[in-house]
Formats: sequence, structure tokens, C-alpha cells
Amino acid sequence: MKISCSKSSLMNGINIVSKAVSAKSTMTNLQCILIEASLSEIKLVANNIEIGIETIIEGNIMEAGKIALDAKILSDFVRKLPDSEILIDTNDNYQVHIRCERLESNLPGTSGEDFNYLPEISKDKYMSISQFSLKEVIRQTIFSISDQENTKIMTGELFEINNDILKVVSLDGHRISIRSVQLKESFDNMKVIVPGKTLNEISKIISGGVDDEIRLYMTDKHILFEFEQTKVVSRLLEGEFYRIEQMISNDYETRIDVNKTEFLNSIDRSTLFIRESDRKPIILNIEQSSIHLNINSSLGSMNEELEIKKEGKDLRIGFNPKFLMDALRVIDDETVTIYMVNAKSPCFIRNEDSSYIYVILPVSIAA
Amino acid sequence: MKISCSKSSLMNGINIVSKAVSAKSTMTNLQCILIEASLSEIKLVANNIEIGIETIIEGNIMEAGKIALDAKILSDFVRKLPDSEILIDTNDNYQVHIRCERLESNLPGTSGEDFNYLPEISKDKYMSISQFSLKEVIRQTIFSISDQENTKIMTGELFEINNDILKVVSLDGHRISIRSVQLKESFDNMKVIVPGKTLNEISKIISGGVDDEIRLYMTDKHILFEFEQTKVVSRLLEGEFYRIEQMISNDYETRIDVNKTEFLNSIDRSTLFIRESDRKPIILNIEQSSIHLNINSSLGSMNEELEIKKEGKDLRIGFNPKFLMDALRVIDDETVTIYMVNAKSPCFIRNEDSSYIYVILPVSIAA
Repeated sequence: MKISCSKSSLMNGINIVSKAVSAKSTMTNLQCILIEASLSEIKLVANNIEIGIETIIEGNIMEAGKIALDAKILSDFVRKLPDSEILIDTNDNYQVHIRCERLESNLPGTSGEDFNYLPEISKDKYMSISQFSLKEVIRQTIFSISDQENTKIMTGELFEINNDILKVVSLDGHRISIRSVQLKESFDNMKVIVPGKTLNEISKIISGGVDDEIRLYMTDKHILFEFEQTKVVSRLLEGEFYRIEQMISNDYETRIDVNKTEFLNSIDRSTLFIRESDRKPIILNIEQSSIHLNINSSLGSMNEELEIKKEGKDLRIGFNPKFLMDALRVIDDETVTIYMVNAKSPCFIRNEDSSYIYVILPVSIAA
Repeated sequence: MKISCSKSSLMNGINIVSKAVSAKSTMTNLQCILIEASLSEIKLVANNIEIGIETIIEGNIMEAGKIALDAKILSDFVRKLPDSEILIDTNDNYQVHIRCERLESNLPGTSGEDFNYLPEISKDKYMSISQFSLKEVIRQTIFSISDQENTKIMTGELFEINNDILKVVSLDGHRISIRSVQLKESFDNMKVIVPGKTLNEISKIISGGVDDEIRLYMTDKHILFEFEQTKVVSRLLEGEFYRIEQMISNDYETRIDVNKTEFLNSIDRSTLFIRESDRKPIILNIEQSSIHLNINSSLGSMNEELEIKKEGKDLRIGFNPKFLMDALRVIDDETVTIYMVNAKSPCFIRNEDSSYIYVILPVSIAA
């Protein structure tokens, strides 16, 4: 193989495929990036079995071929090269010779013969969404996936398409996050569970532009994300997702409107008085037209009063402050509406058209 | 004590004195900040014996008094308060009552009776320098102090004043950094060894403005830094500093001029091929009008050629790449001049008026 390309286009490609490089595998190829030059294009590939990425970079091909290189060494080395043209060629012993300005370097490579390419994904079922919307909807739901591998399905997110609506759901046993996104057109109905890790990596790779589209192709076992010169393939999680419809209720006894930023900051302050080992809830006293946040510990005490608009009964209810903060942080509205039934039933943070619903279980508190 | 002040002025004061709070002391007062209100001013104090800081903040004093508070809790709490007026008062049980907007909080305090105030420093001997110059000269020398407590004097920097010249020296047994700064006026001749930790903290606190002066008062045992509303007192290191004059020579067999950025970047790239555990030197081959940087390891190899201007003999010499990079990073000149004698004698990176001299011992290499 003999190719040349700019440092920036090679670095950009390496950064993209590196997201699919295994950090601590002992299987050499999982830690490698494959550079493959055909007659028409230069492709970089990495694949750690869970997720595989390939991207095409610009450059000149003098001789087709391929080579696999340790991803970390390649990435560190290219990052430090001058911002100039890079010439890469390989010999029969899989030595990679790199030239850039007045620098010459040899890196050891391997043949890439047994490299895991991305699986072929049938393109029957797909949806298209702006990179901005996909990135947003991941950010707004990813915090409530579970990291417990024994509840595998909770480590992923439900992507459900009904005509022109994409619904994304994550839950961890204490809370549920639901976001609905209006798509530009209708697609076939689909329902898949995408691993949280995959979504985290996708979020980092896509630019997030409002006008940049990304296409998602789904089969029973895989999802393919296709955008610009890049393809990302991930396994799906197998199984049935939780029936969340039956957990969502519109009944309430107490409904409050509260300024989001004030509420978030107040909860944030109160957490200073909780030692992590204590796992103490914060207590909200909803009375007439205000919430009193109370916290009292060996570290000190705090009492803050927030003005609210209230409908229904007064209520005293306790929460894990992190769960409230996680949800409030990803809501852009100035005022949020919270629906509660009693101190033991889940509370709902929801806007009028239910484009977001955050369900949070309270923590039982002494009466 | 009963005072009020803005969040920003309290936070600013806390940030300054926190640099003298001990992180892991079990002596309570060393982890505390003392707030003391006299009839005329509100002072914050922290003192971990090595270094003590006091600063005056703006505010209103309704009742004089003092209180000591856990520095970390106070700092975390004030940081999260709304950007508004804060009212602080204390009761007879040393409970600290803090009010801010619609928030009330109680933090446990202590009397502050046995708090270590800053020692009184005689102001006979002093020098004055711009904060910018002090910050720069610390940055340009601090990397070559030693972190070995058994060579205590090497953990500090020599500050030597001769008329209107401040000379700052640090060394660690493998290299010496010397910077000379022209002062605006002449001062009494002085020579002290300031702990590196103190200089690091001073660097973080001062704004670094060219027009902001800082005064340094020195006694046999202490140094006092005074600027704006803040005083920092540190112990000095006792003992005689190394006689560096006899280590500095003007003789050379090889003198080269090299582009600083190219040289630095090239060394930086070469370090990728050195495993930390190997401690391999990089080898410079100085031949005619170029340097060849050679590195060869199990990770790969690199050879880069840099154009230079040379005077004297050709030379093959090995260095710890970190030592070269540390020095080159803090030199602002586009071209640096390096003086060498042979592969075993120290090399000197020095400008024409010797306002900087970096001395680096080579690493012996196979012939």
C-alpha cells in the first residue's frame, strides 16, 4: 500500500474510528485501526465487536493495499506530526513507513488479513434525523440508563418509530426518561434497543449540525448509523423492552409550576449537606404557594423557600436529589410543571405536549 | 459577629486564602478559614504553618467578632449561592447562620480562639516587582526544582537581588534554570530560598497584570508577599544555596542556532517511541548544518532532520527529552542558541545577555 493524505484528514479519520477501538483487549486486532486503500478510496476501520466504525478519508492512492496499526500509537504519532502532507507506505514485512516534511518513521504493523470488517446491514428499514436532534435526544435521556449488566436491557435505550415520531426511552428502576422527537417525514414503524455505549460514542462523533442528516438502518440484530463519509454499526440489545405505557399516568393530586433554574440551583446547594455514604433524600415541603427545601445533617442545615404556582393538595415528599437534577438539567423550559399523587407514588415532570416526560420515584421519608 | 457582603467578594476572598488550607491535616484549624470582623474591616485568614494568607474583603460590619469554618464546606457552599448579598451572623455556640435571598443555612463553626495568625514580618528589606514578571519568572524556573524532600534546598528556588537585578535559580541535580529580571529600581542586596510550593500558590493567586505591583519583604526566616488586599507569608528554606557560578562556563566546542518550535515539536514526537520505564535518551547527531534526531525502540523508529546554524565541531549527544522540552517550552525566542563541549559535559541554552541560562546534563550513550 502506498498513499498520501493531509495530516488533518488522517487525524480526523483516526479520531472517528478510535471510538470503536477496544481499550484493554488482548486480541490485537481489537486495538488496531485498519487502513485500506482500494483503487478508489482510503478507508479506516476499527471494530471491537460491540461497535464497528469505518470512515473514508481524502487522499491519493499510489498503490492499493491494507495494513493494521496499533490505534493508540498511530493516533498519538499523527497528532504530533506537522500540519502537512503525510506519505504512508508499507513493505512486505508489514513495516509502515511514514514520511512528513523532513521526518521519517517506521511503525510496526500487521497484515490486517483477519481484521473484522463491519457486517453487511440490510437497508430495508431506516429513519433519517438531523444530527442535532439525535445528539440532543441522547443527551436528554442517556443519564437514566442502568450500568448494571445483570439488567442488560436497562443498559440500552428504546428507539421507537411511529410514523413521523421518534420516541426514545431509558430507565434504571428508579426513574424513566421519555423524549419524543418530531421527524421531517414518516417512516415504517420500528422498535429497537440500542446499547447506551453506542449512543455515547455516536454523540461524540457526529458534529451535531441542525442541517446535517444522519440515517439509521435497523435489522433484528444491528443498527447502522450512516452520515457523511462514516458508517457506525452496533449490535442491538435483544429482548422485549419494558411496557412503559402502564407506568405513565395522568392522575395527580398536586401540580406545581416552578422556575427551573432556581429549583435546580437550590437542590444543588442542598446536596452539599449530604455525605454520599448517607444517601439521604432531600425533602420538599409543598405548602400553599411555595416549596420549602429542607436538609439537616451533621455538616449543617439549609432551608430555602421557592415561590411556585400550585394546584391541589399540600405535600411533603422526599427525593434522591441527583435524580431531580439530572432531569432538570436537560430541560430547556424556563418553568417546569411537576405532577405528584402522594409521597410514595412516582412524580412526573412533563410539558404540555408530553414531548418530554421524566418519571421519578420518591424516597420514603419519616412522616 | 454579624456582617454582610456580596457573594462575589466573599468567594474571591475564599479562593485566595484557600491556597493556605491544609488538605489532609487532622488539626482542625489548619483546615479552616477564619472570618474576623473588626470595627473597620473583614479579614479572611488561613494558615497551614508552611504558608499563611490573609485577605480583606469588602462588606458591612454590624457587629465585630470572629469565627472559624471548615474551608471546604464554606467554599463549596458559597460557590453555589445565588449572586447576591450574603448575611453572616454567629451565635454563642459558634453556629454560623447564613442568609442569602430566600435561603437560610446553619454551618457549624469554632471559636477561632486558637487560630494561627500570620507572624509579624519586619519590613526592613523588600523588593517590588510587577505581578506579571513574578508570575513569568516562576513559570520559567519552577519545573526544575526537586521533589525529593531529602535534598530540601532543591525543593526551593533561590531569589537573589543585586541592585536592580532579580536572579531566580532552581536545580534538581540534572539541570539548572537561571532567569534574571531587570527591576524598575535598585534594592538592598538579598538572598533567600523560597519553597517551591509557596511560589506555585503565589502564581495561582496573583492576577499577573503588568501594571500590578507586588512587594516582597524578607527576613531570615520568612518572606511576605503583599499585594492589593492580600498578604501571603511563607517560611524560607534554611541553609546555603549551591554555588552555581562555578557550574557555569562560557567555553564551548559546538554552538548551534535552531528554530525553537521545530526543535521542541520534533523532540516531543520522538518521545512517543520511548516507554517511560525504558528511560531511553534521545540522540542528537549534529553534523554540518543539521541535527538528526534518532530514536529506535520496540514501538517503532523515527528519524528527523532539522536545519541549524552551526559553529565548531560535529557532535553526537544524548538527552533526557523531558529536560530539553521543559526548558524550550518556557523560552519565548524564535531561535535558541545551544552551547556544548562534548557528550559528557553539560550543555547550555542561553541568550546573548544571559537573561536566561538553562543548563542540562547529557545522558551517556553508547559510542
